[in-house]
Amino acid sequence: MGGDFAPEEIVKGAVKAAEEDDISIILVGPQERLDPLLSSLRVEPLPVSIYHTDQFIRDGEPPAQALRTKRKASMLLAAQLAREGQADAAVTMGHTGAAMISALWVFGTFEGIERPVGGGVPFFFAPETVVLDLGPNVDCKPRQFLQFAAVGVAYARCFLGVDNPTVAILSNGTEEGKGNQQAKEAYRLLKESPFNFTGYVEGWDLAAGKANVILCDGFVGNVLLKFSEGLGSVLSSWLKERVASVAGQDAAETIASELRHQLRVEERIGGGPLLGVKGVMVVGHGRSKAPAVKKAILVAKQAVESGFLQSIEKELASVVSLLKGE
Amino acid sequence: MGGDFAPEEIVKGAVKAAEEDDISIILVGPQERLDPLLSSLRVEPLPVSIYHTDQFIRDGEPPAQALRTKRKASMLLAAQLAREGQADAAVTMGHTGAAMISALWVFGTFEGIERPVGGGVPFFFAPETVVLDLGPNVDCKPRQFLQFAAVGVAYARCFLGVDNPTVAILSNGTEEGKGNQQAKEAYRLLKESPFNFTGYVEGWDLAAGKANVILCDGFVGNVLLKFSEGLGSVLSSWLKERVASVAGQDAAETIASELRHQLRVEERIGGGPLLGVKGVMVVGHGRSKAPAVKKAILVAKQAVESGFLQSIEKELASVVSLLKGE
Repeated sequence: MGGDFAPEEIVKGAVKAAEEDDISIILVGPQERLDPLLSSLRVEPLPVSIYHTDQFIRDGEPPAQALRTKRKASMLLAAQLAREGQADAAVTMGHTGAAMISALWVFGTFEGIERPVGGGVPFFFAPETVVLDLGPNVDCKPRQFLQFAAVGVAYARCFLGVDNPTVAILSNGTEEGKGNQQAKEAYRLLKESPFNFTGYVEGWDLAAGKANVILCDGFVGNVLLKFSEGLGSVLSSWLKERVASVAGQDAAETIASELRHQLRVEERIGGGPLLGVKGVMVVGHGRSKAPAVKKAILVAKQAVESGFLQSIEKELASVVSLLKGE
Repeated sequence: MGGDFAPEEIVKGAVKAAEEDDISIILVGPQERLDPLLSSLRVEPLPVSIYHTDQFIRDGEPPAQALRTKRKASMLLAAQLAREGQADAAVTMGHTGAAMISALWVFGTFEGIERPVGGGVPFFFAPETVVLDLGPNVDCKPRQFLQFAAVGVAYARCFLGVDNPTVAILSNGTEEGKGNQQAKEAYRLLKESPFNFTGYVEGWDLAAGKANVILCDGFVGNVLLKFSEGLGSVLSSWLKERVASVAGQDAAETIASELRHQLRVEERIGGGPLLGVKGVMVVGHGRSKAPAVKKAILVAKQAVESGFLQSIEKELASVVSLLKGE
């Protein structure tokens, strides 16, 4: 029931996933609205069922408060189905904050992870680089960098297919003496860890994807993401005018909009699994139509099939003494 | 004697400034190399003189150490001429680090300023936005944000011609509750200051120039600058290919290189005055040829004529109680 086009596009995307990718779907929402949709799509032989609830979180509701009063919200129930083994994963196009709270309440975080981690592959040009934290963890402690690294290494293995991911800390220079206090202490911890730690990387190394896992404080990650998106907007306006003068209006608009999309990180991050919680929950965009919904479902499938949760657990176990030792 | 094209291009640029902009020039360097250059340029009636020294800092020398052994280095002497009133300002295309140390030794910082500030107008798209700190001050204390603000307000008044510059803190959200610890404390101080403080801005507001003076920790500033430059490089490669397909190779190369230049912040920052020191010292690029040298000299002229130092002093005085009170 989440997202701008629920439930129609959600149902369409889910049915497509069942049809084309051999995935069993449980739709969590009001039976009376889902039934006619399923009928109209004629899904009789497909493994698509309905789990009824008439509560859901609307966009704009304060998520924690809404979830406290709606204990049968579709998002919460979907997570519960996953926890109880009736499903392998939960997928939502709803409010990210509400999804995060649902996942926290229902799954909890891994032992060793203090708070859910914000991360993903933000830069089009560096498709094999996951950056964490991208927002939620501000003023994080150096040991949280170890936690981000464990999650990031699992992410790179399971989603990017990288065998022995390199891990680096974002800093203001590559020499060991560089860095702020936080980066320096994290450096010392990472150096002692079993991760494939390559040291510091700098701002320009982000777009070049110089490491598979790049670690930073969520404050820095948030600023970078939004800066990138802001640049996309001003650069594409400039580019539109500039290209129009040599190749005409149509080509200019196409190229400018491509550029904007390449820097619109929100779209790149979207459809990612929540990180650090002990269950698979994939949050897609509110704007998702059926194809994007199906894509989010496939991300969940990949998380399950690649053993993403087990991989995080294993990486965390490898640094448990460092995490406690600090 | 600093920069890749010294002394020839430096002398040419200086002579041009004397010729076209009514500026008296003292060239600090070896008489035997400068004399023939001046003769060949036939500058007889122009106010261009030579202050002899045969010491200078070479690129690649460790600056502090080099300056300690070369007490008559051209950079140091130029700053001394400015301090003693024989010149109004010093200009160099030499090593930035050496220039900073020279300025610190000779001028010192303003009372109330702990360390020199790194700042300038980094983004082509936001020509009325000065960002500080862009590097030197990592892990800075909240009160340093007040110092950056004082310098930034003076900069915006004197170099950008903005009467009542708006001042904002870069953060991870605009609500007052957002920010890391540092930003939150700086927020409280700025709110009490007489500056035209508008609160937090976010990453995307940088390129949009949402405030005239944007404050951040030098760690964040450094990462942003380099990230922008890194993006310039990958985006321009992408763009070259993309535009070539619709408008041919030549147009593609032109537009791609324009894009790269727009994001190459180093070039935008270059030719700026050192900030926070009690004297005007403008550092241009090592790669500067005569026109860029002249431009750097004009920046120095503008600093002097606009009363940049007095303006910083005045802004600092307006927050002296806040700076002490913390």
